[in-house]
Amino acid sequence: MKKNIVVGQSGGPSCAINASLAGVVSAGIKSAEIGKVYGSFNGIEGIIKNNLVDLSDTTEKELELLKITPAMALGSCRFKMPTDFNSEVYSKIVDTFEKNDIGCFFYIGGNDSMDTVLKLSQYFEQKGIDIKVVGVPKTIDNDLMLTDHTPGFGSSARYLTVTVNELIRDISIYDIPSVTIVEIMGRNAGWLTLAAGMPYFMGGNKPDYIALPEQVFDENEFIDTISNKLKTDNNIIAVVSEGLKDKNGEYVGSDSKSGAVDNFGHKYLSGVGKYLELLVKEKIGCKVRSIEINLMQRCAGHLASQTDLDESKIAGEKGVEFAVAGQTGIMVAYNRVSDAPYKIEYQAVPVKDVANFEKKVPTEWLEFENEQAKAKIVEYILPLMQGEVKQQLDENSLPQYFIIKK
Amino acid sequence: MKKNIVVGQSGGPSCAINASLAGVVSAGIKSAEIGKVYGSFNGIEGIIKNNLVDLSDTTEKELELLKITPAMALGSCRFKMPTDFNSEVYSKIVDTFEKNDIGCFFYIGGNDSMDTVLKLSQYFEQKGIDIKVVGVPKTIDNDLMLTDHTPGFGSSARYLTVTVNELIRDISIYDIPSVTIVEIMGRNAGWLTLAAGMPYFMGGNKPDYIALPEQVFDENEFIDTISNKLKTDNNIIAVVSEGLKDKNGEYVGSDSKSGAVDNFGHKYLSGVGKYLELLVKEKIGCKVRSIEINLMQRCAGHLASQTDLDESKIAGEKGVEFAVAGQTGIMVAYNRVSDAPYKIEYQAVPVKDVANFEKKVPTEWLEFENEQAKAKIVEYILPLMQGEVKQQLDENSLPQYFIIKK
Repeated sequence: MKKNIVVGQSGGPSCAINASLAGVVSAGIKSAEIGKVYGSFNGIEGIIKNNLVDLSDTTEKELELLKITPAMALGSCRFKMPTDFNSEVYSKIVDTFEKNDIGCFFYIGGNDSMDTVLKLSQYFEQKGIDIKVVGVPKTIDNDLMLTDHTPGFGSSARYLTVTVNELIRDISIYDIPSVTIVEIMGRNAGWLTLAAGMPYFMGGNKPDYIALPEQVFDENEFIDTISNKLKTDNNIIAVVSEGLKDKNGEYVGSDSKSGAVDNFGHKYLSGVGKYLELLVKEKIGCKVRSIEINLMQRCAGHLASQTDLDESKIAGEKGVEFAVAGQTGIMVAYNRVSDAPYKIEYQAVPVKDVANFEKKVPTEWLEFENEQAKAKIVEYILPLMQGEVKQQLDENSLPQYFIIKK
Repeated sequence: MKKNIVVGQSGGPSCAINASLAGVVSAGIKSAEIGKVYGSFNGIEGIIKNNLVDLSDTTEKELELLKITPAMALGSCRFKMPTDFNSEVYSKIVDTFEKNDIGCFFYIGGNDSMDTVLKLSQYFEQKGIDIKVVGVPKTIDNDLMLTDHTPGFGSSARYLTVTVNELIRDISIYDIPSVTIVEIMGRNAGWLTLAAGMPYFMGGNKPDYIALPEQVFDENEFIDTISNKLKTDNNIIAVVSEGLKDKNGEYVGSDSKSGAVDNFGHKYLSGVGKYLELLVKEKIGCKVRSIEINLMQRCAGHLASQTDLDESKIAGEKGVEFAVAGQTGIMVAYNRVSDAPYKIEYQAVPVKDVANFEKKVPTEWLEFENEQAKAKIVEYILPLMQGEVKQQLDENSLPQYFIIKK
């Protein structure tokens, strides 16, 4: 008898995670080996609580809209699976799977979600339960091992490149010295900040300063560089990662001796952008502004990359293919086989080699004035953000979304 | 003999100010009554310094690209014209105009720029100098009198509506209580915050809270409302204007008794969004985040409104038409003649009745739960943000801009 499947989403949103969901659902519906296709609300929590929705009747037209809808249509969670297999979390999960005759569980998410895939697959193997567990990667941070890049990164990269180009237009209008500091997501890996630096890496002269968590950040060097640039250029723009650290490995701006307090008298940690804004004001004294790109860099579906959404949907479909072929404890990965023309293949990699690792920007790419490094960065990032996604507009010319009702 | 014309841009950027520039240049080139078409770098400062560029050879294709390029292609300034007509500023301006045989000056800008138009036109009249001065409105703030709306507002409104819709998707994913506060530009007028509230006014249930500078902001009422909403809904989103004031007319968060200090020990004024974030943390204690939409709401050309860009270009063309007909000391204005179908006419209004006034959101629109008020708001804003602008993409599928080299 045919088994059913269930799919969940976890971690932070992206513009592409629903494309992967559309891929799993589409392939699940089409597969002769699969019965019903369920979705789990709020990731693994929906499995624990048996809070599922039957997605088997989703139409191709609905899947097309789901593909371009940002954030998680099924909701998300931040749930760390217990290491103790005797925990009732595992028995509840098994209950839900048995109750709904589940043969395979697909989990779309980042690092933490791959830890869930790993633990569940190990648990089922140990208990001799024949339920496959397959991970489909997702993270705008692009920090997963064993995959050329992650679904969601290309769309955020496209958003950041276009937005920084627009900010460069905006800040260039006044004929007085000004510094603009743009803070980009990425606590430990600088991939998104690299993407924000693309207008420079592609041959422009801005952004003027790019700083990643993979580099040691030196405040004096930063102020010296900005001051020097201000001698010949009035409008300076810096893009910096939220995770900048100093030579002691401390997050920039987190200095406990600073004595910053908020309006309520509590110790106050500003973000790195705001901190550097205050630093420029203090040390240089010119007009300065910081901009935190914030959630927009992960949810701006209207500026998603077509390449990213196409690949992300196929990643979901491939997950189903791998599961039907009997694989478990794996994650779908992108293997880049060619740069020009850009071409990737999809493969299954052991999730144990992915979970709880982080992929950093290579050291040799960090010499930003080196032409070879610049070429490497462009060669890597540019193909991932190609293609304008056609939004489905309603009668008011506003983008439409696919909403799954709880 | 045919006279030449010159055009300048002033104030803060928008997505539509280059469309008006394209309109002036296009009509200037086509007019049989006009010789050369000059641009002035950095607004009136370029006139004072005789820093002009000849735009007479701009092609139709270039004008099409200029129309969709965000921010000011000619640069901007913040220059307050002296009230004393004996100031050498006026004689320098006359020098430049005489040197370049200028018969008309077009100034594209907001409130302050219309003050320049007013003063210059009064000066020329008083001195008996036959140079026309025509204002073309521009401000995302939508706060100019005697015009139904301002060029630039519709594009920012479109950006804000789409972005808030995407943020609503983003914040809805977690099944835990959270509050998101979105800070919108508009120091004295709440038009942009109204636009950010469109997902609610158009019939949705979010944003959950909308606050404009036209209303007295009460912290206790804010906290009570948010707390109540959290009883039945986990994911609350508020959109607030940067210019909220309390019952004493003080800007919210500016309380000098708060004792907030920055990392460098200086008194620190956070924006209203950050202040309300800290307030929610203090009074409610749930997960809370503030998002300052910042410059993106004025420079996101990729999400401009086609209606806005079309109207803005025509506004520039009409300015030339009015000047050729002999008008001076006027501003081009939009007169809405019909809501359904939406239709406007262009007219010349006396700039003396525009400069230094501010148009606020009508009091009767501020009852946000009143269906008639909601309908009024939608009827007013929705037509202005209609239409997706087709970007001109380069070989890397990135938006192209028209750059005027200094």
